[in-house]
Amino acid sequence: VTELPIAPNQTRPDDVLVLGAGLAGLTVGWELAAAGCRVRILDREAPGQATSRVAAGMLAPVTEAEPDDPQQLALGRAALARWPGYAAELEAASGIVVPLRRRPTLAVARDRDEAEALERFAGIRERLGLPVERLLPSAARTLEPALAPTLRGALAVPDEQAVDPRVVVRALAVAAGDAGARIATGPGSAVEELLHDGTRVTGARTADGLELRSEAVVIAAGSWSGRVPGLPGRDRLPVRPVKGQLLVLRDPQGPGMVERVLRFGAGYLVPRDDGRYVLGATTEERGFDHATTAWAVHDLLRDGAELVPGLLELELRETLAGLRPATPDGHPAIGPSPGLAGLWWATGHYRNGVLLAPLTGTLLADRMLGRPTDEALQAIVDPARPALTPTPEDARA
Amino acid sequence: VTELPIAPNQTRPDDVLVLGAGLAGLTVGWELAAAGCRVRILDREAPGQATSRVAAGMLAPVTEAEPDDPQQLALGRAALARWPGYAAELEAASGIVVPLRRRPTLAVARDRDEAEALERFAGIRERLGLPVERLLPSAARTLEPALAPTLRGALAVPDEQAVDPRVVVRALAVAAGDAGARIATGPGSAVEELLHDGTRVTGARTADGLELRSEAVVIAAGSWSGRVPGLPGRDRLPVRPVKGQLLVLRDPQGPGMVERVLRFGAGYLVPRDDGRYVLGATTEERGFDHATTAWAVHDLLRDGAELVPGLLELELRETLAGLRPATPDGHPAIGPSPGLAGLWWATGHYRNGVLLAPLTGTLLADRMLGRPTDEALQAIVDPARPALTPTPEDARA
Repeated sequence: VTELPIAPNQTRPDDVLVLGAGLAGLTVGWELAAAGCRVRILDREAPGQATSRVAAGMLAPVTEAEPDDPQQLALGRAALARWPGYAAELEAASGIVVPLRRRPTLAVARDRDEAEALERFAGIRERLGLPVERLLPSAARTLEPALAPTLRGALAVPDEQAVDPRVVVRALAVAAGDAGARIATGPGSAVEELLHDGTRVTGARTADGLELRSEAVVIAAGSWSGRVPGLPGRDRLPVRPVKGQLLVLRDPQGPGMVERVLRFGAGYLVPRDDGRYVLGATTEERGFDHATTAWAVHDLLRDGAELVPGLLELELRETLAGLRPATPDGHPAIGPSPGLAGLWWATGHYRNGVLLAPLTGTLLADRMLGRPTDEALQAIVDPARPALTPTPEDARA
Repeated sequence: VTELPIAPNQTRPDDVLVLGAGLAGLTVGWELAAAGCRVRILDREAPGQATSRVAAGMLAPVTEAEPDDPQQLALGRAALARWPGYAAELEAASGIVVPLRRRPTLAVARDRDEAEALERFAGIRERLGLPVERLLPSAARTLEPALAPTLRGALAVPDEQAVDPRVVVRALAVAAGDAGARIATGPGSAVEELLHDGTRVTGARTADGLELRSEAVVIAAGSWSGRVPGLPGRDRLPVRPVKGQLLVLRDPQGPGMVERVLRFGAGYLVPRDDGRYVLGATTEERGFDHATTAWAVHDLLRDGAELVPGLLELELRETLAGLRPATPDGHPAIGPSPGLAGLWWATGHYRNGVLLAPLTGTLLADRMLGRPTDEALQAIVDPARPALTPTPEDARA
């Protein structure tokens, strides 16, 4: 842990505007407010209504990382280690229970190709010194009797967990508010223009015509982060939306049909404590389109039912689409902008927004407040890294 | 056309309460208000929000009738004949365009069993002297190029039409209101008790505590009609809910992918004028359960895509479940109760609520106001017929 200097063009702000009341904005707002900053969080929608509520909430750094990306893995593992303590702090601060699902995740194979992929995944975990247990289909079905008899094999992954992002959003909004952050949401609180004098930010103007002054602005607007109106071209971070569709099912009999997070092929099934299940997800490059489509719903149900036939007996409560904010190198952007002074980023979390939420608040606040921090992690998420340089096309967009 | 006597225990009312603001209640309310009655329509929800908005809106008396039920067929055909004039009157009265889809319905077969069923259906139409045209798969695909090449055969049914029930609800609410009917909706307008003195109705008490006096009460509450609180046992009409699930899809490119109503097996696809499509429907005996289920959504999409593969490319906008009000003999109950004086029924329309809406208003108003009417049709829908006698179980429920 080193005390990084505050970036050369940054000063410790007393007064911060956070653009975006999703998980990233809320965790940043909570951390800064708790540290004594004057924090206002702005969003055109209620907290967590854009992408955060569509997240499945798996805390799965190894499963989600590309095998050849040690930086992503280091970031994810540090984030996972933060979660139990973070959940406890969040519960204490908000009075809202934030349950972590701690039973081992089961990664399962439905055919030979998936069985081979599972074996590769087991090998990666073993090389990393992480626990993994190979299970015969019969053993997997003893743990989860709802699994189809056609199951080919399974791995138990004991260290990956899950959390309900909607609960986290609710708890964060309370915790941030109690720490003194003001959360202003609704169409009038949409930012119409980022205000700056050419070298440093001075605030933002909202749709209801208010001009808000601040020393610092944190952009935590997910897929929309690079498009905040008024951003100079050199500050148009190249974040793009990657659409994910998923379903919320509900067992009217209550919880218990499936107890563990199940992963299969590109899909997953995440049980919640109240009998709901999240079944996901597609990965689509469709720009800002967020329609739910017939094929996605059909394929998710077909693939899920191949694994857990009883899924088809459940109620279908929600069909959802969210826009994961992706960066060119797949890592988030957390820290000072290399452009305008007073401009900070907390975005680009792609598939890992829930997992990385606690670390995002800490890493950003460390930089903004000049606190000791983890230099290696800061380097991974540095918004000034070459991969995040806006292309001429981004800058013009 | 005969002038039927008003039922022995009924008198022509000046003042009518209609329980239910679905299609049945609205069409009755419009007709009675236009004839000079003082009409109040009550519902716990906004007009048409329970079952009417879930209807596909096919005007298909032959397709929907059981082949061995000439009464149902006679009723349906009379109703279909009313629709063009009714739509024109409704447009004129409301100022809202009520488009009828007049292109021939295509009944299609995907396999040999369905091809045989189609041939039986063609035979029924021919015996009834109704037009029907057998099409080779290639001819069907010339009409509707979105049909799958695996199509086995098709019939063109020129006289069946379709209408958007949500448009009809909006237009009826305006027309009824302009004719002087008062429509009171919302939780406070739920009926808490039907009021009567043991021999005749005196009004109703609503959830917000109002006691409304009236000479006549029309129960047009769909599947809930037999359960209006305060109904004496002998007036508990045996109406039961039959659940139907369906999907609303939408083509972001607008209308045109499919131009005709398509029928296949137990399913149908109904195009709307704005690029939406209704894909239905299940038929389930599940009491008042109206959850949408994973299996239904999966099966509807799978079966629909087998017929029109392009369906899977559409947006999935709504997953819906409605409760069709079914009677023991499958015919509606329209007319005076054999029990309490001043009590009238307009319910039990099962799968044909949209088709029968115009006729329902006319048949009921004819009886209530002592106007000339069609005696044969009145006999079919008479609430006093033996099939509608409440069982001891209904009476206790």
